Formats: sequence, structure tokens, C-alpha cells
Amino acid sequence: MLGPRVWSSVRQGLSRALSSTVGGWASGEGRKVDISGIYPPVTTPFTATAEVDYGKLEENLHKLGTFPFRGFVVQGSNGEFPFLTSSERLEVVSRVRQALPRDKLLLAGSGCESTQATVEMTVSMAQVGADAAMVVTPCYYHGRMNSAALIHHYTKVADLSPIPVVLYSVPANTGLDLPVDAVVTLSQHPNIVGIKDSGGDVTRIGLIVHKTRRQDFQVLAGSAGFLLASYAVGAVGGVCALANVLGAQVCQLERLCLTGQWEDAQKLQHRLIEPNTAVTQRFGIPGLKKTMDWFGYYGGPCRAPLRELSAPQEEALRLDFTSNGWL
Amino acid sequence: MLGPRVWSSVRQGLSRALSSTVGGWASGEGRKVDISGIYPPVTTPFTATAEVDYGKLEENLHKLGTFPFRGFVVQGSNGEFPFLTSSERLEVVSRVRQALPRDKLLLAGSGCESTQATVEMTVSMAQVGADAAMVVTPCYYHGRMNSAALIHHYTKVADLSPIPVVLYSVPANTGLDLPVDAVVTLSQHPNIVGIKDSGGDVTRIGLIVHKTRRQDFQVLAGSAGFLLASYAVGAVGGVCALANVLGAQVCQLERLCLTGQWEDAQKLQHRLIEPNTAVTQRFGIPGLKKTMDWFGYYGGPCRAPLRELSAPQEEALRLDFTSNGWL
Amino acid sequence: MLGPRVWSSVRQGLSRALSSTVGGWASGEGRKVDISGIYPPVTTPFTATAEVDYGKLEENLHKLGTFPFRGFVVQGSNGEFPFLTSSERLEVVSRVRQALPRDKLLLAGSGCESTQATVEMTVSMAQVGADAAMVVTPCYYHGRMNSAALIHHYTKVADLSPIPVVLYSVPANTGLDLPVDAVVTLSQHPNIVGIKDSGGDVTRIGLIVHKTRRQDFQVLAGSAGFLLASYAVGAVGGVCALANVLGAQVCQLERLCLTGQWEDAQKLQHRLIEPNTAVTQRFGIPGLKKTMDWFGYYGGPCRAPLRELSAPQEEALRLDFTSNGWL
Amino acid sequence: MLGPRVWSSVRQGLSRALSSTVGGWASGEGRKVDISGIYPPVTTPFTATAEVDYGKLEENLHKLGTFPFRGFVVQGSNGEFPFLTSSERLEVVSRVRQALPRDKLLLAGSGCESTQATVEMTVSMAQVGADAAMVVTPCYYHGRMNSAALIHHYTKVADLSPIPVVLYSVPANTGLDLPVDAVVTLSQHPNIVGIKDSGGDVTRIGLIVHKTRRQDFQVLAGSAGFLLASYAVGAVGGVCALANVLGAQVCQLERLCLTGQWEDAQKLQHRLIEPNTAVTQRFGIPGLKKTMDWFGYYGGPCRAPLRELSAPQEEALRLDFTSNGWL
Repeated sequence: MLGPRVWSSVRQGLSRALSSTVGGWASGEGRKVDISGIYPPVTTPFTATAEVDYGKLEENLHKLGTFPFRGFVVQGSNGEFPFLTSSERLEVVSRVRQALPRDKLLLAGSGCESTQATVEMTVSMAQVGADAAMVVTPCYYHGRMNSAALIHHYTKVADLSPIPVVLYSVPANTGLDLPVDAVVTLSQHPNIVGIKDSGGDVTRIGLIVHKTRRQDFQVLAGSAGFLLASYAVGAVGGVCALANVLGAQVCQLERLCLTGQWEDAQKLQHRLIEPNTAVTQRFGIPGLKKTMDWFGYYGGPCRAPLRELSAPQEEALRLDFTSNGWL
Repeated sequence: MLGPRVWSSVRQGLSRALSSTVGGWASGEGRKVDISGIYPPVTTPFTATAEVDYGKLEENLHKLGTFPFRGFVVQGSNGEFPFLTSSERLEVVSRVRQALPRDKLLLAGSGCESTQATVEMTVSMAQVGADAAMVVTPCYYHGRMNSAALIHHYTKVADLSPIPVVLYSVPANTGLDLPVDAVVTLSQHPNIVGIKDSGGDVTRIGLIVHKTRRQDFQVLAGSAGFLLASYAVGAVGGVCALANVLGAQVCQLERLCLTGQWEDAQKLQHRLIEPNTAVTQRFGIPGLKKTMDWFGYYGGPCRAPLRELSAPQEEALRLDFTSNGWL
Repeated sequence: MLGPRVWSSVRQGLSRALSSTVGGWASGEGRKVDISGIYPPVTTPFTATAEVDYGKLEENLHKLGTFPFRGFVVQGSNGEFPFLTSSERLEVVSRVRQALPRDKLLLAGSGCESTQATVEMTVSMAQVGADAAMVVTPCYYHGRMNSAALIHHYTKVADLSPIPVVLYSVPANTGLDLPVDAVVTLSQHPNIVGIKDSGGDVTRIGLIVHKTRRQDFQVLAGSAGFLLASYAVGAVGGVCALANVLGAQVCQLERLCLTGQWEDAQKLQHRLIEPNTAVTQRFGIPGLKKTMDWFGYYGGPCRAPLRELSAPQEEALRLDFTSNGWL
Repeated sequence: MLGPRVWSSVRQGLSRALSSTVGGWASGEGRKVDISGIYPPVTTPFTATAEVDYGKLEENLHKLGTFPFRGFVVQGSNGEFPFLTSSERLEVVSRVRQALPRDKLLLAGSGCESTQATVEMTVSMAQVGADAAMVVTPCYYHGRMNSAALIHHYTKVADLSPIPVVLYSVPANTGLDLPVDAVVTLSQHPNIVGIKDSGGDVTRIGLIVHKTRRQDFQVLAGSAGFLLASYAVGAVGGVCALANVLGAQVCQLERLCLTGQWEDAQKLQHRLIEPNTAVTQRFGIPGLKKTMDWFGYYGGPCRAPLRELSAPQEEALRLDFTSNGWL
């Protein structure tokens, strides 16, 4: 639990933030922060009794720290953020901040359903050390989340956030693709620096890069399955669940893309597709955590209602790694 | 804000609940509570500065109290519950309880994403006076919410809830239809009394009635658009957004169905379809609240990111009422 | 194969039709034909070598003739019409016409992808004895089939058809729901008499009945699963795959609805839902044909690429009938 | 119209084909035909009275012949094949064959709903000069088109086809994605040489390339919007509606990809996305044909029920070209 001290500090941060001008690295010289690179969206380790296991979290981070990641995403979809209390969300970010070297970026998921709650969470995330806020689209009323509503939402959040904001579109969870025209409009906001796009539609990713080319705006692929293709059309990095277990390989794929070794990149990309699908769409967080256990990290259980894999599912998961030479 | 006294009382209730046997009206004589009838899912009134306006809430309830409703649903999808803090959710229920005559049922939406949070919220809802908990399916990870996961989730909630549990399936919001086989399994739980089904698939509703016929289990239609058809296949009532503005008419439709006056029922049902669609799918809560303003209730603004209707939308909304003779 | 004589006759019919005024039973006194009642959509029997087995077709019709059906649908989705040549489509209708007593209506599916081909097929269907044409929405380019395109298509077909036209909306096959506003516009055409709606959305069915109430226009439910509910909101009959095997029961359900015995109707409806789903969505035409074999009709094989059920599927299919007391 | 001579010749070809061993370029030395390169899917020009305008077809081909295309797709989705009679389908292919230099590949769409009809059409297409058959998935019963059904269908077609077969998956039209496991199985057939994949899911395209890497099997992107990304993950070409109007540019994009000039390729790809979307998803064949008129080809009308663009649609279409510097 976040103690009273932290909360009080959060509240102070909030009032400071709300009364100050737009902040983050975007202010001052007028250049936005560069978020290019690879990020694992870290999982939240739980004990057998479903408490957050901060010790295991730090151990995982320590091991992941050996790879040339640009930083870490905390409280993305893989972080089970909808299952955490507000205090837990902040405490996790706080602990990750303390465990990370200062040169690693910490992108903290701060999205909530209401605009107001998102603003408050974003300010609090800044207070506990997030470098940028990754804000998922509100989703419960996705039928009414048209461009106008989303532009208004993100503008308000970005206006009031002391740290840069990264848009986050993940239709598999939210039922909602942040419309391209909304992204283009929002790219002009001085405190919105990019988007994590997990939809996997590379035509859309290319179009976003194209239509925001005159802005200081960056696109991160939301999954390792289309990372190479995203680089090819102008993305600058990725937030990849798979990097939690195959961190070296995802970073190698990045390097091959950046150095124009497309043939080798293609071969490596091919071998990552099935493992990636296995730890995302096919078996979700339970699959990712199970794989982490195999690769020397702490995966552990998910919070309910997410459930452990069955034995046949586990076998299928393993096959997706062995058949590609990773286990 | 819920004061410290209430919270403390909530916590006591929780510990009592967790240490006691399954409760609610289901215990004792072995018969489950009868939830048949019509319920408006009450909206949450907000001030111009987006604070919950408890006074307006009470005024609305006072006016709605003149209709022969079986009770009220609080914190359903129309209550903007995802935009409320936990304290607000409980305080709203508490205020509604105080404003309602004892013979009106209060069904409180207590669903959260995690099983644990849902249990806690359900227990708290009981503590502040809910007669039953209406528990929406978790949705952010709907891709993994298969029957096994949902049966486990609802069983845990129902095991620990001091009040009866009503399942709540609303695919337009959650992207998830609670599978029929899960409903059938859950219908056997002594503390699960029924389902509110908002999907509008009357074949499914008939099948649920049929396959739970040996259980003490009731089905409520989740919208006025298919209320007559739902009665025809065995539903026992409805939770109808439209009842917030056309309360007399929805209750009249119920009576016509219950007394077998199907011809008149059909005529009335027909005239309710367009208005109902207008305040649900077509224009959502902003449409419902706007209509409430027209009908002498307090609608007022929604919390962001929900937005007010545009002038052309408002006109279209009005037409759906005038063309059917309601305005 | 349709011989040269028939084709020549078809062509004559076409030229007659195109030069005459709009025909069918709709002409003369200005009242449209009454299509109320129950229709089995007959299957097309094939030999082991996938030839149309006209003898078996007649045997099936002979057996089905003992039930009080209003008529028969030939070349609906269950007739495997997309797998038949034009000649076979006409020959099947011709044979059914000869096998049917004159007082049974023959609704022939005449939909093709292009408007012109649909017109020609409709005229030919009239020539070989169809009483009305049931015209499915074009579907390959469903992304462009908006109301304007569909209104234009159906108007042209109805203008040129010598027999009344029944609209046919079956989104499970076509990916397209004929929009309500298009239905309302088309209901005013003197040669369009009704719609077969297979989508199962009873709110929509009620709305169509309501908004066409001033027209001479009838709605048929497209499946037995929502037949009672459709009657309850104003439909006048149904085209029910299940009537191919449980003809007596579907006709009994009709009678119970028409005579206001809603309680008995409900009980019967309940027992028909699972068998109906089994021979439609769940196991498709292969399931329907297999069941026909069980019930003393000739089901036989489907044309490829449709395939026979596996043994476990067959068992599940049987269970859906036995568990409801039909086998 | 195809004259009697051609039909007789088609029939002879059919009997020859059915009695011979599997044919096409695949026989003999055991290497499959190489289909790599860019193909415009040619439109079918119609006169004002909706007759096929073979003269305009030849004129278009003549103009398109100046670009370094690998060949032409005839009777793809853009060819309005569902609106053509069998005779017209063959005559169009026959005319294209005559108009093309021998070194251009002619891929003819020969898919029908039934397996038998598809076999017959494929054999006929070979007879009138197609180099390979592009076979779209059957779609009316897409709910039953699982891997087993589709493998059976394509195997039968490929067994009996005298020319190589290219699989064709276009979910926007068919509601069906040819499953990856079916593609992998079918890639082993000696007479199946590749797939045209129009779904735009580049993760899937990469996976298909990866899992068929030990087969002689090629992947063509089905649209210019994801052409670069497809090359990046191992596709060898594309069937691009946009190549009907921006043929030089699409071929240039191919060359940039093949020569590893990814930076320039990316810039060009970006400028092609909006125009491509405009002539496919956004405005369909009416949009493509309108654009052809602008670019000096004959576009002309579509057959009904496809309709011409409205003036505002035309303006939006034009903007998608002008804003990217193409008009």
C-alpha cells in the first residue's frame, strides 16, 4: 500500500502541476522528448495470495536491465492495471522508478475511464517518477468515443500533465481504434509526443507517420509481431510484451532494422511472430507470465478473473517457442 | 464524499460478510428473492462543475417514485459508474436507499475489473443498503473471459456477497456476451438470482429461461426495445433506460404483457422502439439526460469524455419522440 | 438439366414480362398477396455424385405436404442456391411447382449479385411457376451496399418482376442487414409485399412492422428460434429451416401464437430453440440434412465445399434434439 | 458473347485437362512458376447500357502495357466478376490474352461458390489463355468454411486445374480469412504456387512466408497500402488496384524495395496510402473507375447495384490524390 506520505506528496504534486504551465521535457527548447526504442511492458508480479510482489518486480527489472532497452512501460495492458488499486498503480511505478537507472525512460500507463480521473492519475504518475504518461483510450462507452470526444479528452489530459503524453490505442482490449484524424490533430499538441499503436494495421501506422511528418511526433509499434514492418513504414520503436522474455532478440531486431540489415531482420522477425502471438492474443498475460517463469524471470499468477493456462494450452505455448528455436 | 464513518461501517460490514454464511434473502427458507418488474437504471446527475448533485438525484427519485416500479438500478451503465470514484459509487447508493421507500428494490451495480475489487464493492454496496448487486462482466480482458473464467469470477462474488447477485451482460459496452452455458451453471448458485441481459437477442433470452427453468432464476430484459418480446419468451421484467422518461408507459407495457393484452402491448411496444433506441444505442447517456430535461427531470451534463449532443443530434433525438407521439 | 424447350419458354416469358405492366397478384384490385404462414425452405437433395436428385425432392415434398404450411421457399440459403447452375435453379423450382398443390405458395429465391441477373432470374422464376420471388441482398460488395444502392436494386427488380417480390435479409450469410429505412421505402412499392428477416433482432422486426404499418407489407421471421417473439411484435409467419424436420411442431407454434395461447406457445418455443440453432448456425445445411435423414426425409450430401458432419458433431446435433424430447 | 466455337473448345480443354496429369508450369522440372511482381487487377469497362466494352478494355491494356508489370489480374474483385456471366468472364480473359504480349502473366479469377463450378471455370480459364488461376475463397456459407473445407476445396481445384493455382483471401468481400494453417497445408500442393492476401495483416503475411519457407510458394500483397511492409516481411509482389492509375509509381515502389532503397521507398509508400484507400475501401470500384477517367484510362460506369459516386464523394476522392501530389 502507498503510505500517507506518498499520497500527501502526490497531492502536492497535483496542485503544483495544475498551477504550472505545461511541463515535461517538451517545454523549454520546444523540442519534444525522443521516445524511440524498445520497451518491455512490465508485468505486475503477484504472490500466491494475489498481493503485489514488489521484490519480484525489482528482480525482474534487474534482469531486464541487462538489455539495451530505451525504457520500460509500466501499467500497460500487460501490467494488469485494471486489477490494481490507484495506490498500487502508483506504488508500482514508484518502485520501478527507484529500480531503474536514470537514463531509462519510464512510461507509465495512467488511463482511466473519466477525463478527470485520468488527469489526476497522470499528475500522480509524474509525481512518483514517470517520465511520460501512456494514456489508453477510455473504453466502456466506446460507442460514443468519436474523434471529437477523444480529442477533447486527450487535450485536457495533455494540457494538465506535467509530463509528456503518449497516446495508446489497443483495440483488442478497448474495442476502439483511436481515429487517424484524431491522432493527427493531437500530434500538434506540444505535450503529446507520440502514440503506441497495438492494432497491427501497418497501413494505418504508415499513414499516421505520413500525416504527422511535419510534427514532432513518434510512433511505437505495440507488439513485436509487426515490429519490422512498422520500422519499414517509419515507426521508431516498439512496446513489446515479448521483450519480457526475448529481450535480446527484440533489441537485435531493432538494431538490424536501424542499420538497414533487412534480410537478417526479416529472418529474425519471422521467428518472433508465433512466440509473440502466443504471449499476446493467443494466451494473453497468463501465457506471458508462464513464459517468464521458463526464461528465468518471475511470472507467477495473475489476479482473478484471469486464470492459469491449462496443461494443453501450456504445451501449445511451449511449442510456439520450441518450433522457432527459442526453447 | 463518503465520510470516514461510512467507510468504517463499510469495513465492518465486509468483515461480517466474509465470516458469515451466504446471505441475502436467499438464505433461510431456500427461496430466492423475486426481482420481477420494471426498473429504471437511474442516471447520476452532475453539477456544471461535474460534481455529483445528490439533491437533483433525490428530486429525480421523488418524481420517479410515482410509478409502479419494482425498484431502481443504481450504477448500471447509464449511471456512468466507470466515471465515479469508489466513494461516490457508494454514496450514490446510500442516498438512493435513503430516498426510496423500503418496498422498492435497490439493485446496485458493483462490478469491477478484478474479482477481489468486485467482492469488496459488492460487500460495501450491501452495507450502504443495496438489496441486490448487479454485477457486470469484467471487460478489459474480454478476449480471455471464457465460461470457466466467468463462472469462477461470479461464483466467488456470489459466495462472498451478503446480498443476492444479479448477472449483467451488456455486450455493447463490454464486447462480451456472458455465455449461455455459464449462465446455466451460475443459475444453480444459491445466491445468484437472475440476469439482466442487454444484448437484445431474444432467442438467447428464451434459451436462458428454458435451460434455467428448474432453477429459481429470473431474466430481466436490459432495454425497453425488446421488452414485450422478452416477456413473451419468459422474462419477468426489465431494466429500461427509457423508464427514466417514459416511466408510465413502460409500466403500462409491463401490465399489458402480464395480463395477456398482447395486441395493445404490441401497439405500445412499437411506439417505444425508436425513443428507446434514441436514448440508448443512438445517442447514449447524453441523449437520455437531454430527454430527461425535456420530461421534467434533471438530466444535466455527463462527465467527460462523454459530450453533449450537437444541435442536429438533439433535433434527431426529439424527432424520435415526437414522431411516436411522446412529445 | 433444363431442356431447350423450357429455356425458350423462359425467354418468351421474359419478353412478355418486360413489356407488360407490373404483375403478380398485386395488380388488379390494389391489394397485395397475403404471404402469412409457415414455410419450410426446402433443401436441394443431391445424389452421391452431387447431381440434383429430383425424385428425392418430390418425395420430400410429398411428405412435407401433410402439414398445414402456407407454402414452400425454394432456393433460400438452405437450398444451396449458390451451388446450382441457373438451369438447375429453374428446374428445381419447376419441379416443386409441379409437385405442389395449387393452393400452396411457392416463394422462389431469385437473387443474384447483379441487378440485371436478378431481374432475369426473377422473370424466369415466374415463368417456371413461382408465386413470388424472394430476393436476397447482393453481398460480394456489401461494403458499398448502402440504402441508396439497395433501394435502387430492389426497385428495379420489383418494377420488372411479373410476380410479387419478398425482400430477404440474412446477415449471417451476406454480412449485410438490409437497413430499416430502405425496407420502409421499399414497402411502398406496389410489387414488394414483404420481407423475410433472418437476422434475429426482434427490436428491428418490431420497428419494421411499426414503420410499415400504413403499407400493405408483411414480415416473416427467418428462423424458428425467434418465431414466437416475432409474432408477438407483429410478424405474420416464418420461413423456418426447422420446419423441414419438425413441421408439425412449427405449425403448432404458429397456431398457438395466432390463437393467443401464449403460455403453451412459450413452452413449445423453448423446446425448439436448441434444435433450431443446431440445424442453422451451429451445424448449417449439413446438420439440417443429417437431421432430415433421421426424421424420414431424404437429406443426403451437400455439394462441396460444404462437408459432412464429423461423428462428434453428429452426436452434438442429436443431443440438441433428444434433450428437448424430439428424438 | 462467347461464341459456340469457343465454348466447344473450352469443353475439349476440360476433358483433356481432367484426363491428364496435373499441369501448368509446375509439372516437368518440379519448379513452380515464379509469380513475383506487380499486377493491376484490371477493371471491366462497361458501356452506358452496361454491356462489356471490349474495345475500351483493349485500350486500357494498351496504355497499361507501358509499365513494367509482371502481368495482369483479370476477374479479381475489382473486375466485377460476380456481375459477369460465365461467358463474359471467359470472353474477357480471352480478349486480355490476345491483347497482352506473351511475356506478361495473366492471372484469371476463376473462383465460384461450389467446388465443381470452380473446377470447371478454372479449366475454361486455362483454355482461353490464362497462365494461372486466382481462386477466391467461397463465401456465401463462410460460417462453415473452416480449414478442412477450404483445404478440400482448393486441393480438388488444384488437382484438376491445368494451370497453377493462386489462393486468394479477401476478407473485406468474403467475410473470411483463409486460415494460416490451411495456407501452409495447401502450399505443399505441386499446383498451388502462392497466395494473394488482401487482408492487410502484415503479421499474418510474415507468418505465411515463414511457415511456407520450405515450399516453393509465394505471397503477393493484395493492395498497395501495405506493399512496402509486405516486401519487408517477404512478399514478392502485389496485386494493386492503384496500379490501374498510378502504375509507374507502384512499379517504382517495387523497384525501391527490391533494391533496398528503403528510405525512398518509405516516402513513396506514404504518398500512396490515401490514394490507395480511396480507390479500395473508401470508394470501391466506383472510385477506382472515376479515377481511371481522370488519369486517361476508360473507367466508365459499374454494373448495378454498384452506383456512381456523389459529387461530395468525388471531391473527397480527388482530394486524396491532390493532397499527395498525384493530381
